[in-house]
Amino acid sequence: MSEFAKTTMNRVRRLPARARYDRDAVYAIVDEALVCHVGFVQDGQPIVLPINHARWGDTLYLHGAPASRLLKHIAAGHPVSVSVALVDGLVLARSAYHHGVNYRSAVLFGHGRAVESDEEKMRALELITEQAVRGRWAEVRRPSQAELDATAIVAIEIESASAKARSGPPGDDAEDYALPVWAGVLPLEIRALEPVDDPTLSPKVPVPGYVAEYRRG
Amino acid sequence: MSEFAKTTMNRVRRLPARARYDRDAVYAIVDEALVCHVGFVQDGQPIVLPINHARWGDTLYLHGAPASRLLKHIAAGHPVSVSVALVDGLVLARSAYHHGVNYRSAVLFGHGRAVESDEEKMRALELITEQAVRGRWAEVRRPSQAELDATAIVAIEIESASAKARSGPPGDDAEDYALPVWAGVLPLEIRALEPVDDPTLSPKVPVPGYVAEYRRG
Repeated sequence: MSEFAKTTMNRVRRLPARARYDRDAVYAIVDEALVCHVGFVQDGQPIVLPINHARWGDTLYLHGAPASRLLKHIAAGHPVSVSVALVDGLVLARSAYHHGVNYRSAVLFGHGRAVESDEEKMRALELITEQAVRGRWAEVRRPSQAELDATAIVAIEIESASAKARSGPPGDDAEDYALPVWAGVLPLEIRALEPVDDPTLSPKVPVPGYVAEYRRG
Repeated sequence: MSEFAKTTMNRVRRLPARARYDRDAVYAIVDEALVCHVGFVQDGQPIVLPINHARWGDTLYLHGAPASRLLKHIAAGHPVSVSVALVDGLVLARSAYHHGVNYRSAVLFGHGRAVESDEEKMRALELITEQAVRGRWAEVRRPSQAELDATAIVAIEIESASAKARSGPPGDDAEDYALPVWAGVLPLEIRALEPVDDPTLSPKVPVPGYVAEYRRG
């Protein structure tokens, strides 16, 4: 089933024409984002924390220290919600009212579990490493058993999700088009700057291609 | 009081040396972010949604349609949590275990209220417009009374908050420094591309300086 069922949880109420429920659309946004924002409830209080992530199928992996409040809570199986947003541009209309942004966002719902096996932990760490820098895993020293033991990994099984996006020029009220005000879109992108060598790096080690030609999205 | 009290809610448990509790540090991150992720609880279910914001003092303003589930919930005074994250670079160590990101993040806690007066609504819309593009408010047509009436604005009074940041090169285990693996930081930034004129724009209207020279952060 390539589409999430529309339920009271994930149905987009505002501007439903901008909504998507198919996994391809939702996961393309999740996979492009470098960080997600995970919300959970503790004693009735919502808590939202940013964290790096990676996805495999309908599973979202997060990692951190075993003492992490977020990871312990997720591992215990409580419901969680995850939000990611990519800002593609600023939409400048002639009226303040019609300003906005071009964006792609996704909201996920699911329950977590602790990842216990070394095999799945190792795969999750590979996915998280590759999510940030594709090509990196093949080159680095892999986690030792002690490092695996010192890393908590949780999996969130994505049960429901939706995506929302806006693109294109602003829309103004008919009577505003004659105003002598610039209108249009200012596109934004995440750009990589020159890689900065670690100060201790041997001058014989070159910058790898996947770093020199890094692109996001 | 320029520092948020450390409580069980906002105290950073993981890597506390990276934490900051002073308003200047927290709010610099909030103000640079183009989008925040707001978490609330509905029937025990956490829901996190992305939205644009602006801050004034200890107040965070959000706006949208009066029918918005998020805004109605916040206006009713329920507790909310807000997360923002700025990714400054990818930290590439020689071992997978020591990979990470350079980032600045902030997590806020508070309660909301509906903004009712036209004066405060107008000020919030000015702040939100200027948060995206400084200089824009002075040039655009201001909201009409009908537009003000059709816009819901909520204010979140920020009662507790913390910031967390990492910067600088990777740290590797002593025995890994001899590995022939590139290590360092790949800095990332949000860059504005060439402004795209609205297709209907009169050729006599030039791109304003605050758009042509737009910089974030």
